[in-house]
Amino acid sequence: MHWIDLRSDTVTPPTPAMRRAMAEAEVGDDVYGDDPTVQRLEELACELLGKDAALFVPSGTFGNQLALFTHCQPGDEVICGEDSHLVWHEVGAAAVIAGANLRPVPTQAGELGAEAIRPRIRPPGDIHLPKTALIALENAHSNGRALPLAGMQAVRRLADEKGIAVHLDGARLFNAAVALNEDPAALAACADSVMVCLSKGLAAPVGSLLLGSRDFIELARKKRKLLGGGLRQVGILAAAGLLGLTDMRERLQEDHANARLLAGLFDGQCGITVLHDQLDINLVWCRVPDALDGARLAADLLRDGIKINPPEDGLLRLVTHWAVSAEQARHSAQRLLDCIHAQGIAA
Amino acid sequence: MHWIDLRSDTVTPPTPAMRRAMAEAEVGDDVYGDDPTVQRLEELACELLGKDAALFVPSGTFGNQLALFTHCQPGDEVICGEDSHLVWHEVGAAAVIAGANLRPVPTQAGELGAEAIRPRIRPPGDIHLPKTALIALENAHSNGRALPLAGMQAVRRLADEKGIAVHLDGARLFNAAVALNEDPAALAACADSVMVCLSKGLAAPVGSLLLGSRDFIELARKKRKLLGGGLRQVGILAAAGLLGLTDMRERLQEDHANARLLAGLFDGQCGITVLHDQLDINLVWCRVPDALDGARLAADLLRDGIKINPPEDGLLRLVTHWAVSAEQARHSAQRLLDCIHAQGIAA
Amino acid sequence: MHWIDLRSDTVTPPTPAMRRAMAEAEVGDDVYGDDPTVQRLEELACELLGKDAALFVPSGTFGNQLALFTHCQPGDEVICGEDSHLVWHEVGAAAVIAGANLRPVPTQAGELGAEAIRPRIRPPGDIHLPKTALIALENAHSNGRALPLAGMQAVRRLADEKGIAVHLDGARLFNAAVALNEDPAALAACADSVMVCLSKGLAAPVGSLLLGSRDFIELARKKRKLLGGGLRQVGILAAAGLLGLTDMRERLQEDHANARLLAGLFDGQCGITVLHDQLDINLVWCRVPDALDGARLAADLLRDGIKINPPEDGLLRLVTHWAVSAEQARHSAQRLLDCIHAQGIAA
Amino acid sequence: MHWIDLRSDTVTPPTPAMRRAMAEAEVGDDVYGDDPTVQRLEELACELLGKDAALFVPSGTFGNQLALFTHCQPGDEVICGEDSHLVWHEVGAAAVIAGANLRPVPTQAGELGAEAIRPRIRPPGDIHLPKTALIALENAHSNGRALPLAGMQAVRRLADEKGIAVHLDGARLFNAAVALNEDPAALAACADSVMVCLSKGLAAPVGSLLLGSRDFIELARKKRKLLGGGLRQVGILAAAGLLGLTDMRERLQEDHANARLLAGLFDGQCGITVLHDQLDINLVWCRVPDALDGARLAADLLRDGIKINPPEDGLLRLVTHWAVSAEQARHSAQRLLDCIHAQGIAA
Repeated sequence: MHWIDLRSDTVTPPTPAMRRAMAEAEVGDDVYGDDPTVQRLEELACELLGKDAALFVPSGTFGNQLALFTHCQPGDEVICGEDSHLVWHEVGAAAVIAGANLRPVPTQAGELGAEAIRPRIRPPGDIHLPKTALIALENAHSNGRALPLAGMQAVRRLADEKGIAVHLDGARLFNAAVALNEDPAALAACADSVMVCLSKGLAAPVGSLLLGSRDFIELARKKRKLLGGGLRQVGILAAAGLLGLTDMRERLQEDHANARLLAGLFDGQCGITVLHDQLDINLVWCRVPDALDGARLAADLLRDGIKINPPEDGLLRLVTHWAVSAEQARHSAQRLLDCIHAQGIAA
Repeated sequence: MHWIDLRSDTVTPPTPAMRRAMAEAEVGDDVYGDDPTVQRLEELACELLGKDAALFVPSGTFGNQLALFTHCQPGDEVICGEDSHLVWHEVGAAAVIAGANLRPVPTQAGELGAEAIRPRIRPPGDIHLPKTALIALENAHSNGRALPLAGMQAVRRLADEKGIAVHLDGARLFNAAVALNEDPAALAACADSVMVCLSKGLAAPVGSLLLGSRDFIELARKKRKLLGGGLRQVGILAAAGLLGLTDMRERLQEDHANARLLAGLFDGQCGITVLHDQLDINLVWCRVPDALDGARLAADLLRDGIKINPPEDGLLRLVTHWAVSAEQARHSAQRLLDCIHAQGIAA
Repeated sequence: MHWIDLRSDTVTPPTPAMRRAMAEAEVGDDVYGDDPTVQRLEELACELLGKDAALFVPSGTFGNQLALFTHCQPGDEVICGEDSHLVWHEVGAAAVIAGANLRPVPTQAGELGAEAIRPRIRPPGDIHLPKTALIALENAHSNGRALPLAGMQAVRRLADEKGIAVHLDGARLFNAAVALNEDPAALAACADSVMVCLSKGLAAPVGSLLLGSRDFIELARKKRKLLGGGLRQVGILAAAGLLGLTDMRERLQEDHANARLLAGLFDGQCGITVLHDQLDINLVWCRVPDALDGARLAADLLRDGIKINPPEDGLLRLVTHWAVSAEQARHSAQRLLDCIHAQGIAA
Repeated sequence: MHWIDLRSDTVTPPTPAMRRAMAEAEVGDDVYGDDPTVQRLEELACELLGKDAALFVPSGTFGNQLALFTHCQPGDEVICGEDSHLVWHEVGAAAVIAGANLRPVPTQAGELGAEAIRPRIRPPGDIHLPKTALIALENAHSNGRALPLAGMQAVRRLADEKGIAVHLDGARLFNAAVALNEDPAALAACADSVMVCLSKGLAAPVGSLLLGSRDFIELARKKRKLLGGGLRQVGILAAAGLLGLTDMRERLQEDHANARLLAGLFDGQCGITVLHDQLDINLVWCRVPDALDGARLAADLLRDGIKINPPEDGLLRLVTHWAVSAEQARHSAQRLLDCIHAQGIAA
């Protein structure tokens, strides 16, 4: 069966071109700094994001935690959104690896504003207080929003005023750039370090990049080794990542269009309400009726060849990506409505 | 000069009776479990708080962090108030020692309610999520409030429902008990572990206690040694602590009365507004006019023999304790008003 | 230029068959447990090594540190050889990730004997002592020796007597098995957990496996996520790893033969002394004359298309692997002697 | 019953003068930097040891671990003797608090020589290697030896050559100084940081000091707070510590003389062999016959009012201190021989 997989953009299979590129990749031992394909990938990412140095890492969580480990001393505090990936989906790693304390802050629908950050910054000189070492932003946010550049710039100014570093969790940074019609480098310029994923919408099978200054990346390179992320002929994966950066970035707008298409086809029907103000990229968030049996819905769709994650707390998330065509989005919307209908929920 | 020290109740000198008791204390080597005075102190605390076992620790921060270290595995999450001592005054220790992540939650004027906790408890089974291992309460709160027993009991029920441990930061637990007219054991019964300070209102020079089940304290005893808190002839300090528990608990109501007396004498004058709903114990919190030069105020009062911490963010905190009499409270209020007046701030 | 790379077996490029397999691999999202190729790899490894469960990890260091993190509580002690990879080449990760203390023990040329371990095991019950939680063996050792099964079995018996877990760093376990003519499962049976590398002699570009009981691997799976090692379409790499296990294991004896061939061609010449008792697998260790300029030697050979790491502390290590033929080994030996000769060092 | 306690010098009760001094001590809140007695103690220690700044800490373990935490970054390595207190009696704290890896090195009867350290120092620039951040010496050693100044100076020179800091665990530094007839400051001059205990031979009930440069101690002060060692009216304890430094240092030679007296009375009798080359201070180490029932010996002596720790691994340690007179030492030796005799072990 050929699946339509709407669970996440992490499920994206590599493209045929990526498979060819991986098969033919020129490789070396990247721990020795020998792998030319990794080097080309890191160089291209630096160009695109306006940073001096880059480092291939096995995953987005790895890249974010490596950034914290490199920016922070044990006991330091990291200001981040209370709905951020750091708080929600990284298994509590910050305290284990960096010995850093997350300081979750309420956001405006994912946007961590300078005015919310300011009162949480620790003043210097008080022996009772941890040091605020880092502000961690996330864009696009996993709630589906692409956050405006101006807000990030305000955070950057505050960070400069206070002498605090900024990290950007850009797992879906290129989605944000496309959605906002901004240069990705303009977004990255608000942060000292940036993590971008090659394995979500860009469709590479595995891998992310951490970028920053030369000194920062040199420190991070050694800490990557400590964390077991020094890999060998990883040019195989970098070859796919390169195609992600060259061939897949612009087409992210198709995923965004398909997300809107999909959302439009069921919004307001069968008690489903799409969260339109969170529909900036390829993530469709919608509220579903209380009466809906989410597990049954997922099981019914699975029989039809459509994979979804069951709703949690009344919220369903559907995700588009290169392996979901407009036609498949249409088909999925119809099948979704059918299956909800079959539960006796009125249109 | 004989000072009136309103900065904190941590400044309390030992009473004359404590000095005698320390001079005459029967001591042994507490690492060998040999110190009879420490044992008496731990036993008495167990009786008062209805716990099976207790452990002398050098400070409140030590006791709280030891509790986290004993309850949590690295990466676990601790739900606590965002205005709690854990978040504000323990130097980011949770991530360093326990490897635990604090999960700060908004409170109702210090009260961490079950309904605010519930949505932050991590469901089991998701590989992305840290485990919620502990809920940390604080009573009395350092904002001056004694929090009602009923709210703590609701948290206890939630914790039982979810199988999560509860720790109570009771640095000023006996103040809370007096203010609420509750048995301290009733408050402690809401928690698996409790830390109480002997060195604040109870006036012992140094020391706190951590209490819990026998198994918990046995684990904590070894971890106390790891953290460098295994002390030798510490019966010297325990002797003062014992008098704190026997002679100083009931008189905390005098400190509370003096706090209200002090507050009443300047509230509404010279632009000062006492935060009356935070005036349950010996901490007077008040809002001062923007025009006030706090550093100058502290310096002027110092010349008069009165020590205060300058206001922070427009808030002044004055603290009463056994070494501040009603008469001294009256005198301090008057001098405070005089000094503010001298800055040209109208009555 | 077509290089002859004798620096390490980590430099092995994937075989043509591996490249094809990667290009055609059936993949899924391994964080969702969806990747069929990863599952096949993990199952095959379980069969070969007689373990119940396995987990793909990005590197050998990752696998070893994940094992420590899963076996140990913070503060626990890990007995290991003072010349082990854990002590020498993992950047001090044990204290950072697991919070564990390595307890390095002198070995007999890499062999960590039960009699050397026994006096380092901490007795229970003393509050001053950390707990000995783990014994870490390494076979084949990075000094080139394949260590006899009997010695490992003696350690296993001691560990059982004391109730301590055993981890086996089997980065080159299949080399050891071939050299010793033992079933790899017999070696693995001495340990509760085993790490094997797919990326050294087995020639996969990236990846290792951690194996153990089902419960152990379930714990490790969550901790792998915490450490950023939860990967997505990693079936790409697993496809190469599978071929490593099926097609490349037996041929490791060719690498061993080539190592002996290479060693025999320069031993005793130009002041070079091969360490024959460390010549069990594909690593040739030899002592070089003090007068030798190691950096110049490496540079001279590089111009000839031969890569070596310069000697350290008078010791040169040359490594054979599938991309070094017998003919190339012969050529390299000759060129090595020529270059040393050129430094005026007599034959 | 008036005990003769030979288990350790940690069991020393405070002297009558210390009890008076504690009762009368002028105190303040040391977290506020207000305690004049603590300040006098820290100043006096600086003078005696030739350091710029000092910090009162609750225990020797606390002081040592605080030193590691202040000198090291997570993952760094600390070279120390394999028979050091750090390895044996601090519960594995180094990995937990500092995230540092101990690198235990064989000693010459406790002496950690420069030549044994040198090959363990990590060269810079290799991404696989942790950084050697600290060398930890111990003098007097807990094996009873006072280690010659010249050896420490050689380590100091090596450390300077390599740019590595040195910490001195001087729990019994004043015993060493007396035994060696050296100025304690000369011993301390070999180290960047020094920890000395006030609570062993110096007889203060609780407390140690960490000394170093002003910058180092400023960092350590904040980390002391993080670890829960910021204490309040700790001038009570400092008052006893001051008398330890002024009145008890020189008399340590009496303890040493009593140790030799005690040792001389049973050496060579009943199969006991005193380890004379470890009899520099107040610790008597001796080998006892295999046939001896150590637990019975301890129990029999206890009935006579003499406390000992039973021998471990055939080694008995007896410790003298101010509360053991020459007469009591003689009596103890006689009773020890009687009790061994009673086990049927021939004289």
